[in-house]
Amino acid sequence: MTASADAISSPANPRVKAAVRLRDRREREETGLTLVDGGRELLRALAQSVEIDHAFVCSELVIGADASASLDALQRSGAPLIEVSPTVLARIAFGDRSEGIVAVIRTPSVALEALAAGPHPLVVVVEALEKPGNLGAIMRTADAVGASAVIAADPRTDVFNPNAIRASVGTIFSVPLAIATASHALDWLVGHGVTAIAARVDAAQPYGDADLGGSIAIVLGSEAGGLTSTWNDPRVHPVRIPMRGAADSLNVSVAAAVLLFEARRQRSLGGAQRG
Amino acid sequence: MTASADAISSPANPRVKAAVRLRDRREREETGLTLVDGGRELLRALAQSVEIDHAFVCSELVIGADASASLDALQRSGAPLIEVSPTVLARIAFGDRSEGIVAVIRTPSVALEALAAGPHPLVVVVEALEKPGNLGAIMRTADAVGASAVIAADPRTDVFNPNAIRASVGTIFSVPLAIATASHALDWLVGHGVTAIAARVDAAQPYGDADLGGSIAIVLGSEAGGLTSTWNDPRVHPVRIPMRGAADSLNVSVAAAVLLFEARRQRSLGGAQRG
Repeated sequence: MTASADAISSPANPRVKAAVRLRDRREREETGLTLVDGGRELLRALAQSVEIDHAFVCSELVIGADASASLDALQRSGAPLIEVSPTVLARIAFGDRSEGIVAVIRTPSVALEALAAGPHPLVVVVEALEKPGNLGAIMRTADAVGASAVIAADPRTDVFNPNAIRASVGTIFSVPLAIATASHALDWLVGHGVTAIAARVDAAQPYGDADLGGSIAIVLGSEAGGLTSTWNDPRVHPVRIPMRGAADSLNVSVAAAVLLFEARRQRSLGGAQRG
Repeated sequence: MTASADAISSPANPRVKAAVRLRDRREREETGLTLVDGGRELLRALAQSVEIDHAFVCSELVIGADASASLDALQRSGAPLIEVSPTVLARIAFGDRSEGIVAVIRTPSVALEALAAGPHPLVVVVEALEKPGNLGAIMRTADAVGASAVIAADPRTDVFNPNAIRASVGTIFSVPLAIATASHALDWLVGHGVTAIAARVDAAQPYGDADLGGSIAIVLGSEAGGLTSTWNDPRVHPVRIPMRGAADSLNVSVAAAVLLFEARRQRSLGGAQRG
């Protein structure tokens, strides 16, 4: 580590300015870099061998077990560490709780061709997602249920948006993630023997009556517009989440969770019956 | 409606400035007023006879069925309407999609004493919640499962935060909502014969093995700190959501949804068996 006396204290430093520019989606997409803020987030990135380009550290702000562990892991990784003042770290960090470390990482590959379905797949497809926070919550749920993969179909946010990383608590690195057009995603599912189960408010069958115990993908539409016509396809099985109140839809990450945990429940039953 | 020629076009107008100040929590708490932005949100407020103090309208921006219907309902309600220019509306509105109407409402009462448990209650208690978006998503889920009430125990956000209203899509007005201390909330549950089912990462029993079909409350801790010691009580039944991945917890609104939809599933089974 650089001694604190050598810490960068000027927000005008070129490396600091370059990191601040990564708050902008276009800059992230042009450079292939993004920001990881937070101890657990960084630990999970390192655990998946995500490439750390460099990291900014304000040693006096590294407090807490997760942040300390991620600093240790960063040092072992050999990534260049740049000591900065608290003021400079605050410029680079985002969110309400900074833990003294912000890493600049190379965004992992998200090619659908590289995605493995694995045995007995449980996949999530989310179309035209707009809000990074919703993607993060979906990754976290996918991690919790042991999902095989998440496919972002025609996303309207960059998937490695720093807020998506943060909302995922780093699970965006541990759950396989791919980007594709909606029609490629559907072809991929069919080609891998995965039944697409699409959540639609107008579907006839309630999800609890559907067979979610097999090789399936839960397919969810955007917050604003629902699913596009790509999913009006005889190969797609529509289900509905019964709604008993004033509203006719759920938050997209909540809908994903309801269907994924039901799939998980049916798999447990199937396993018990078969085993 | 005021003709457009009379529309307020100055952000320095005192009523406009007063509305802009309502973005601040302290101002909302001092005045007992808050902002409702969005057609569906306003329709649901009006359906529950929420008191509209006044509303700002930019007629040329009122596009779409929900916004038009809420403007009609506002006009019928007799609430004072103030025509403003697009620039002024943009100052008052928040969120990414304004629909041309922002209402200033009197925040509804949230006294626990006034809350009715109703028959076969299904209640949600959420402790020390910090993020308005999570409260909104929880209200939306509570509405969807037909929950009896939501109790915000020691909330760290004001529950009628405009972002909570927006994230709830207005269901914050249709689902009974109360605020209380955690210990009052627990006493209320016990006094009404409602079993508190607390979600804890360290609980022995998986939620799927628990009886969630009776009169229950799902109790959830804060995003950061989990549940306080108030819920370490022999009258509280802890359950765990099994986690199969890298992370050990879910987004709080996702955890609420998993448990509430399982409660709803068990109730349907119970009804079928008993009926």
